[in-house]
Amino acid sequence: MNATTRPRVVIIGAGFGGLAAAKALKNAPVDVTIIDRRNHHLFQPLLYQVATAGLAPNQIATPIRAIVRHQKNATVELGTVETIDTAKREVVLGDRRVAYDFLIIATGARHAYFGHDDWEQYAPGLKTLEDATEQRKRILLAFERAELEPNASECEALKTFVVIGGGPTGVETAGAIAELAKKALARDYRRIDPKSARIILIEAAPRILTAFPETLSANAKRALEGLGVEVRLNKAVTHVDETGVTLGDERIASRTVIWAAGVHSSPAARWPNIAADRAGRAIIGGNLRPPGHDNIFVIGDCAAANDASGRPLPGVAPVAKQQGAYAARVIKAQFEGNPLTEPFAYIDYGNLATVGRKAAVADFRGFRLTGFIGWLVWCAAHIYYLIGFKNRIAVALDWTWSYLTFDRGARLITGDIEDEHHAQAAKRNAA
Amino acid sequence: MNATTRPRVVIIGAGFGGLAAAKALKNAPVDVTIIDRRNHHLFQPLLYQVATAGLAPNQIATPIRAIVRHQKNATVELGTVETIDTAKREVVLGDRRVAYDFLIIATGARHAYFGHDDWEQYAPGLKTLEDATEQRKRILLAFERAELEPNASECEALKTFVVIGGGPTGVETAGAIAELAKKALARDYRRIDPKSARIILIEAAPRILTAFPETLSANAKRALEGLGVEVRLNKAVTHVDETGVTLGDERIASRTVIWAAGVHSSPAARWPNIAADRAGRAIIGGNLRPPGHDNIFVIGDCAAANDASGRPLPGVAPVAKQQGAYAARVIKAQFEGNPLTEPFAYIDYGNLATVGRKAAVADFRGFRLTGFIGWLVWCAAHIYYLIGFKNRIAVALDWTWSYLTFDRGARLITGDIEDEHHAQAAKRNAA
Repeated sequence: MNATTRPRVVIIGAGFGGLAAAKALKNAPVDVTIIDRRNHHLFQPLLYQVATAGLAPNQIATPIRAIVRHQKNATVELGTVETIDTAKREVVLGDRRVAYDFLIIATGARHAYFGHDDWEQYAPGLKTLEDATEQRKRILLAFERAELEPNASECEALKTFVVIGGGPTGVETAGAIAELAKKALARDYRRIDPKSARIILIEAAPRILTAFPETLSANAKRALEGLGVEVRLNKAVTHVDETGVTLGDERIASRTVIWAAGVHSSPAARWPNIAADRAGRAIIGGNLRPPGHDNIFVIGDCAAANDASGRPLPGVAPVAKQQGAYAARVIKAQFEGNPLTEPFAYIDYGNLATVGRKAAVADFRGFRLTGFIGWLVWCAAHIYYLIGFKNRIAVALDWTWSYLTFDRGARLITGDIEDEHHAQAAKRNAA
Repeated sequence: MNATTRPRVVIIGAGFGGLAAAKALKNAPVDVTIIDRRNHHLFQPLLYQVATAGLAPNQIATPIRAIVRHQKNATVELGTVETIDTAKREVVLGDRRVAYDFLIIATGARHAYFGHDDWEQYAPGLKTLEDATEQRKRILLAFERAELEPNASECEALKTFVVIGGGPTGVETAGAIAELAKKALARDYRRIDPKSARIILIEAAPRILTAFPETLSANAKRALEGLGVEVRLNKAVTHVDETGVTLGDERIASRTVIWAAGVHSSPAARWPNIAADRAGRAIIGGNLRPPGHDNIFVIGDCAAANDASGRPLPGVAPVAKQQGAYAARVIKAQFEGNPLTEPFAYIDYGNLATVGRKAAVADFRGFRLTGFIGWLVWCAAHIYYLIGFKNRIAVALDWTWSYLTFDRGARLITGDIEDEHHAQAAKRNAA
């Protein structure tokens, strides 16, 4: 550590974990550098609303620079990390290197296909704004094509939406597509009836939302079915291609398949030669550091950590945020001559998932809420945690508007749709 | 015309002209089909605000279906027109054909490079939402790269923004970039001072805003200079490449060049074998129809029409809207047994252009406004004409917010920035 400069804390990734660490170091005698491939922090829990045209990208994304504008010890650098040089204590970004005394790796996860990477082109996942606008384009284009499709069975396939994975993202996406089809789009077409769209949610386990108590899973299933979603349990997807999804000996013809079934860590664990679990997550100790690396913390979705009783911690925002704050506390304690030795302890305040408009399930340490009250709590919690005062107001206004009118303000098809048209025409000609 | 069906009016393009025609046919005994390559109507006069991170794409775009939802005689079809079969009276879209009895071509224009199409990659123009998010990405990435750039002259080039073309789009873009750099981004960087950014507006004519009276041009120039924009008049761009712009014997090093200098009609004139002018616009008569095509109207930016005194009509929204309404009137009159023979007459209510926050120039038939009052009128007019009640409220709130805080809510870099990084690194390595 150079005596003439302050200790350098480098944080890779400005998600919930990385930002929590940066903010907790605000008054510490350190220089903080936040490195991210994107210029914005993304509020991922609401990403499905962008994918289903309920919110616009800027409503759930905030420039990282704006978040730490007033934190004078924080610098933001846009860049893609290639590796970590642990011997020299440097983060390597192409021909640029950033030196660190402490490193916090918080690079998150991508969706994963369990060895079927070729499925991604037919069943895209949801982790970035680009993922969300791609899903939005596919969903909206399916209705546009159905409106023009003379062949009845092709039209049915275009009006069939399959969501794979019954976790919170899958449940929320399926509910939102159902509402989009049956409410927002209901009167917009002349030849097809969007209300006749089929939305199918597929889950390999015996119930959806397995992180919740069984009664809440059952409640969420009933709420989804009330919206017209077909919930298929105990069904494993065996094949996905451009014309649909196979579940063992059953075939579902669909032109729009969405993947919400699994994630794999970003390659963070590989950089410092840390052991990783099957999902690619760095295996870390109770102090959030991999063995042999006292100055490297790995937090959030790219870390495989257990709680006090040995159960794996879930890949949710509160875990990442608490881990980020813990890493910052450990670093600060070191300069206060009072090293922190107690391990990280996760405080689980509860679980929330929403099922379309006006229904949600919530579990706060055994205190359970469902239906409209659950939905109000869900709304309040998400607005509260949305970073940026303005975004909170904009989202609140948007939800109020949607609630009153069933309208969707963000129904834009952007990106290259000409290619899509040609691909579609080619497919029709080949069929 | 088939006696068992109503006359079919097909409108190609859902811009200002096409939508005005569709709406004016609401109660006519015809079936209206609107064909567009996009699912949304775009409020192009505010596109520069998306490009400069002031507004989000969905705030200036509305789904076409939502606009004509309650117009029962209107159908919307997403599609790319390849040609018109005037013999069969059919619009050809790949393997699909749409029959018409009356056709309204309102396909607008793209930016044009006067024979230098290779300039587009270095100096993109502004006509679609994708154009705007691309410009936004380039502008914001330039600051990000400047923050990381060790070489002083490269850093200066990254902080230099050149806008080519002193019409309303160029003036508004240059003013908005100046405000972005000097206000919204002012405190967000640690190594560079965004306030030191150079914004240069280049115009080949002796003054900017040539459609306005000279006093207003001079006023706008002073307002731009007050914002720190360098206005270069009588300067023709002779070369553009990845490192900057050449004006005769002068070279300006810049990594971000924006094109606002010229437009060329969409290929509409070519489809029905109509004569076109140098800008590719269909040459039409006073009845907005090309010679020999009594049932085809060409309106808006893809038409070359003159006013009563023989002067060419400008490519602005009011011309397109009035032409669309005229075409609808002609068609309706035909069914009312009272054919309309008088030619189209443009009513010019005035000209508006804004120069950053709090300043604009307005010319209402000789009644001129400048400065803050002009800006208020500009705001009111644009909010009034924005389609969709909700968008009006959202834009009004956003402007109020920006006005109070100098903040920019839409500072997102989206799209593939990895490629950009690699291209940039390759450029540095090559240099």
